[in-house]
Amino acid sequence: MSAETYGGFFDHADLTDAEVDEIQARFEPVTDDLRRLVDLTIRSEVGAPEVAAAREHLAAAAELLGRRAKEGPARVVRNDTGRSWQWGNAVVGQRNAVAPPMVVERHDDDSTSALLSLGNAYEGPPGMVHGGVSALLLDHLMGVTASSMKKLTMTGTLTLRYRRPLLLGEVALAGRVVSDTGRKVTVTAEISGADGVAIEAEGLFIVPSWAPSPD
Amino acid sequence: MSAETYGGFFDHADLTDAEVDEIQARFEPVTDDLRRLVDLTIRSEVGAPEVAAAREHLAAAAELLGRRAKEGPARVVRNDTGRSWQWGNAVVGQRNAVAPPMVVERHDDDSTSALLSLGNAYEGPPGMVHGGVSALLLDHLMGVTASSMKKLTMTGTLTLRYRRPLLLGEVALAGRVVSDTGRKVTVTAEISGADGVAIEAEGLFIVPSWAPSPD
Repeated sequence: MSAETYGGFFDHADLTDAEVDEIQARFEPVTDDLRRLVDLTIRSEVGAPEVAAAREHLAAAAELLGRRAKEGPARVVRNDTGRSWQWGNAVVGQRNAVAPPMVVERHDDDSTSALLSLGNAYEGPPGMVHGGVSALLLDHLMGVTASSMKKLTMTGTLTLRYRRPLLLGEVALAGRVVSDTGRKVTVTAEISGADGVAIEAEGLFIVPSWAPSPD
Repeated sequence: MSAETYGGFFDHADLTDAEVDEIQARFEPVTDDLRRLVDLTIRSEVGAPEVAAAREHLAAAAELLGRRAKEGPARVVRNDTGRSWQWGNAVVGQRNAVAPPMVVERHDDDSTSALLSLGNAYEGPPGMVHGGVSALLLDHLMGVTASSMKKLTMTGTLTLRYRRPLLLGEVALAGRVVSDTGRKVTVTAEISGADGVAIEAEGLFIVPSWAPSPD
């Protein structure tokens, strides 16, 4: 994929791969700290004095992190080696504590998979993964499945069939392309837990009109 | 709805409404602090010394909040007045920094709506709301629309049609019941931004077999 392709999609960063690694490694532990704090804030039973003291520490952390900060969203960034990253992505962003984060593996046959653990912050029905969180993860994995180094797609239609509840904890996702007509790619995927497949999904992904034809 | 209905769904808490209000008011500001920190951690450009100092404050906050904490997810809790809450819910949880949080309004005609602002942590395509985040919010709003004081439903099938990208910022959701056959409720909904309707959704919501028949 040339540096010009999807020029409006990617921002350019004048960083070496080593510099990108260093920045990511600097902020990933903070992100994990925040994931732990998100979980604790749901579960905590401490009184007002401890909460007030905790808030002072959170304010001090925010002051430190905010001394120099980019304006606006992280966007998708690419450097001169062709490496791209999106630290703020809601599903895979390594610097976004809202993201589990999911890591999508692409296999030789262009199928995809992901394994991750969903904790207390992803709850819907009691003790279960929120059905919409499963939709969020499936949408992302299916978008990755439909896309490739040569093709960038956006979700067109997504249909989800909820088969059984999905317990919080370890979950597995799998996706594959079932048809590809150039500008339209159909993908199926599922998310499973200890009890088996919880949700089956089918999606139609479309190469946006502003992107060059992949054919 | 009697205290026995959906007994497996709700946990019971021996708290007055005033105590519930007090606990929620104690932890909501911490949750907002964390939402701010999530955003800053995506955008921050400070160096390793500031990050290290910030992490010490985050560790101190975690130690304070973790001195006494419930085990496991928040679940859905109800008290003797019939008030129920789910502080950890991934979409509406007031103590869950992963949740925007969304507040669903129910209108006299049983339609629903919600207005909220989606910041940098909900990004998918550059500058846009992640399509799966829209799916997450729509699933939740539609579930609320299908359910009622007399009826508890779970998502059966959800179909989403992506019409146009949705910019980060203020978004509006609206939902309504289009058919209700007792155990099956069909709901339509949409999410809109400054440019108009971005995604249209239709969902079939089902009263789970373990719940008493609503008819």
